[in-house]
Amino acid sequence: MAGSKFAYVRNFELPDPLLPGTFMVLRIDGHAFHRLSAEHEFAKPNDERALQLMDHAARDVMNEFKDIVLAFGESDEYSFLFRKSTALYNRREAKILSTITSLFTSSYVYNWPTYLPGVPLKYCPSFDGRIVLYPSEQVVRDYFSWRQADTHINNLYNTVFWALVLQGGQTTTEAHATLRGTVSATKHEILFSRFGINYNELSARYRKGSVLVRTEVPEPEAVETQPSETNSQDQTSIPVVSDQGSRKKKSKPRTIIELLHCDIIGNDFWNSRPNILAD
Amino acid sequence: MAGSKFAYVRNFELPDPLLPGTFMVLRIDGHAFHRLSAEHEFAKPNDERALQLMDHAARDVMNEFKDIVLAFGESDEYSFLFRKSTALYNRREAKILSTITSLFTSSYVYNWPTYLPGVPLKYCPSFDGRIVLYPSEQVVRDYFSWRQADTHINNLYNTVFWALVLQGGQTTTEAHATLRGTVSATKHEILFSRFGINYNELSARYRKGSVLVRTEVPEPEAVETQPSETNSQDQTSIPVVSDQGSRKKKSKPRTIIELLHCDIIGNDFWNSRPNILAD
Amino acid sequence: MAGSKFAYVRNFELPDPLLPGTFMVLRIDGHAFHRLSAEHEFAKPNDERALQLMDHAARDVMNEFKDIVLAFGESDEYSFLFRKSTALYNRREAKILSTITSLFTSSYVYNWPTYLPGVPLKYCPSFDGRIVLYPSEQVVRDYFSWRQADTHINNLYNTVFWALVLQGGQTTTEAHATLRGTVSATKHEILFSRFGINYNELSARYRKGSVLVRTEVPEPEAVETQPSETNSQDQTSIPVVSDQGSRKKKSKPRTIIELLHCDIIGNDFWNSRPNILAD
Amino acid sequence: MAGSKFAYVRNFELPDPLLPGTFMVLRIDGHAFHRLSAEHEFAKPNDERALQLMDHAARDVMNEFKDIVLAFGESDEYSFLFRKSTALYNRREAKILSTITSLFTSSYVYNWPTYLPGVPLKYCPSFDGRIVLYPSEQVVRDYFSWRQADTHINNLYNTVFWALVLQGGQTTTEAHATLRGTVSATKHEILFSRFGINYNELSARYRKGSVLVRTEVPEPEAVETQPSETNSQDQTSIPVVSDQGSRKKKSKPRTIIELLHCDIIGNDFWNSRPNILAD
Repeated sequence: MAGSKFAYVRNFELPDPLLPGTFMVLRIDGHAFHRLSAEHEFAKPNDERALQLMDHAARDVMNEFKDIVLAFGESDEYSFLFRKSTALYNRREAKILSTITSLFTSSYVYNWPTYLPGVPLKYCPSFDGRIVLYPSEQVVRDYFSWRQADTHINNLYNTVFWALVLQGGQTTTEAHATLRGTVSATKHEILFSRFGINYNELSARYRKGSVLVRTEVPEPEAVETQPSETNSQDQTSIPVVSDQGSRKKKSKPRTIIELLHCDIIGNDFWNSRPNILAD
Repeated sequence: MAGSKFAYVRNFELPDPLLPGTFMVLRIDGHAFHRLSAEHEFAKPNDERALQLMDHAARDVMNEFKDIVLAFGESDEYSFLFRKSTALYNRREAKILSTITSLFTSSYVYNWPTYLPGVPLKYCPSFDGRIVLYPSEQVVRDYFSWRQADTHINNLYNTVFWALVLQGGQTTTEAHATLRGTVSATKHEILFSRFGINYNELSARYRKGSVLVRTEVPEPEAVETQPSETNSQDQTSIPVVSDQGSRKKKSKPRTIIELLHCDIIGNDFWNSRPNILAD
Repeated sequence: MAGSKFAYVRNFELPDPLLPGTFMVLRIDGHAFHRLSAEHEFAKPNDERALQLMDHAARDVMNEFKDIVLAFGESDEYSFLFRKSTALYNRREAKILSTITSLFTSSYVYNWPTYLPGVPLKYCPSFDGRIVLYPSEQVVRDYFSWRQADTHINNLYNTVFWALVLQGGQTTTEAHATLRGTVSATKHEILFSRFGINYNELSARYRKGSVLVRTEVPEPEAVETQPSETNSQDQTSIPVVSDQGSRKKKSKPRTIIELLHCDIIGNDFWNSRPNILAD
Repeated sequence: MAGSKFAYVRNFELPDPLLPGTFMVLRIDGHAFHRLSAEHEFAKPNDERALQLMDHAARDVMNEFKDIVLAFGESDEYSFLFRKSTALYNRREAKILSTITSLFTSSYVYNWPTYLPGVPLKYCPSFDGRIVLYPSEQVVRDYFSWRQADTHINNLYNTVFWALVLQGGQTTTEAHATLRGTVSATKHEILFSRFGINYNELSARYRKGSVLVRTEVPEPEAVETQPSETNSQDQTSIPVVSDQGSRKKKSKPRTIIELLHCDIIGNDFWNSRPNILAD
């Protein structure tokens, strides 16, 4: 074979298996999304269209990779939890990391026109990703609590900040100065007294982020309605039929991927969905 | 801070620096491109539009990441060589791997309509990637020789195979059987005697793959003409001005990214471009 | 500084932290101990002196490294379990692995004359080591079950084998042939019917291996009696006062390292010592 | 098999191959040798017996592992260079690291009484080790230059320091104060003017460290004289016949391991021994 004398270079490809029996979390982050949101004039403090596009890309990832049991998104990031015993690609780190980051990116660009129809993409958006191993259920829960607490902190800050700028007439420098050192209660107070905004009545999507889970459904005749999610109540769900289980055995329950905007720090979420942290 | 009690989970993010002083090659491969090419009716044995789209995505990656000194593409794969001393993202493996695979994917989807204008994408294409370290110039050269030898072997086989099928009326099963065990000379002979095809007169793009290099240009007034590469002679080049060196210092030479379809197994290519393997 | 222009070579020393929150097991194995035992005429099938020397070396390791909560030894190997949250050497793999393998080796050579007084060491014995991460209590227990089951299997085989050779007059080739394919019950039967040996009455040390644990003791006046362990009942223990807790705080309980030859596959051992798998 | 249901735990043992085509340096350091040297009253600033013991241990390592082409020792540390293409233990990091650190330790303890005959070891000395990969000849040379420059810096400091203390009657605190901020020339001057010591006439062993190399010898009748190295001229060598090449083929040249105390920063050493950095 003509290429055989060079094939020894394959020996430099070293194995990179991830520790078995351990939860993987793959987190994807937007690359330079400050610029992306500025150049495409995303609404402030939150652009619902852009967030829905992120959810769509995450859903596409979950539809393709059945061993993802939970995803959580906020702003320009999304975290995916794999079931502990997944053998996806023999747990090879680079393969899993690159394939899923690629698919997420692909879906983001592919579906951009659907969610931002009048806003042509000016250049290629990209994401980075990383895989972190968490050895126990407690650490996994603390990871997702960390991300949802971050969602809350950032959203509260941004909500007041942009109210000061867009409604209060402050410059961005002034708004940062106004907020410097303020505690959470003060920010709530500013929102309510100066702008008439009750923070807790804002869309749960903005306050809680996006939670994607698989839910069993009894009806076999559910119909795909994927991109139609528009309201923002807590616990609303979009019944999208995934193809999991629909091909091989009739006995396996049909599941859909649900989009929630609920609390995942407390116990209720996890107690009601024990499969997430099961094997 | 509300999230601080959970922030310990960051300790599970372990460092992943790549060995300094070593060449990195990042290779990107299409995920399930057999299906992609079938569903979008790519021409056989080679679809020039699809190959040009790959080249465009690779060029976008090189425009963004100045430490890439060479890229080589064939079929649905592309390899990127970084200069030995690159400090990109402090040589963190997951960051480099995921970011570049993502940007490549993004460009591929973004530019699809330009190269395949009448062929709407039916679903999201994706890629995987891997980074391999090569410690010496010789091994780097052997790596690229390995890929170009692979290009030749595959293209010769595919060219005869599809001639047998499309022109010779064989089924794909029959064509595989015809070719089983044949050496290179026999394949050349079949091509010439039965189909009048002189393999060595086929487009260099198909026989040699795509080579992207940076070339210094004297003229400061070059104009960007990126997506116009259409012919397929050896050594043709598309003068695209990269922004490297154009911002900071006037003294630094202006470079363009050239697309070549030349031999990279022999010494000529490397001797005439000593910067590629320099520090 | 004279050496400063060379100090950049330190950049090639890459970090190697082990995943937090995960149990480490470090297993040490004798290097070429077939030859060592032959050249120094170890008794067959078990040489109690050599096993005691292994136990002594393991005990020295546990005295030095307080985060080791359990050790298990058989033949020429010893496994050490660290508490899950250990921060020893910031969990740097090479540092932990090399230091402990070195100390074990040092103690083995240092104490050889005590345990094999009339047998001068003919050359330098050595060991290899490896660290394996186990993410859950169940896998840790299964690891130690695996080692103790191995002890049993090997000891039963070796006991019959050497009875056939030393008492039965078979050659080693004949003895292997006699045992080929035999199940456990057959081996028990051979031992009993041909040599009058009731396997279950053999020393627990040989059947169960050596288990080293830390046990709290109320008496502050215990006296060190380290190398005197000689009997081999189940659950016998050698009260050796470790220096843990004896220096800093009077309130911390004093612990000793106990040597047991007990079952560690069932639940009793673990239920009675919950600290081993606690944080 | 009784143990088979537990054997899955082996899946947690992950591969750890070191990058091919790259130089490995394994450096061993004494653990807490300040205490060891104090408790065993090593001579100051250098204890020749202890240094010879280190050399002996290093030589035992080189006799066992033929792919080590160079070793350099100073104080309580030793560095071993493997030939670039070594396939020792399939380049498994933990196996190589632990085995060699163990053998070095074993030899150190085993041979202690030979070198320090009237000084019984009070406890078990130990070492740590690490493996660092260096991708090019230049970095390998800079590594060894770094260590030898370190030898010089430390030895000059220690020589003046201990002259001030042992001959000059200063306390250690005073001696440190005397030397604080002094350059090399000042230290030479102090040594010469106050104590009549010409630094450059001190034993090359102390100024240059120990260099172990393999040298081809024509005579097949050389005799082992291993532990007799006592003088300390530059370039003196101890002809010890290694068993390399003596068993299999008569045609392969016989080599001995030579102990030198020569400069390895300049080109002469490397030019005269091209095999060290060859493949």
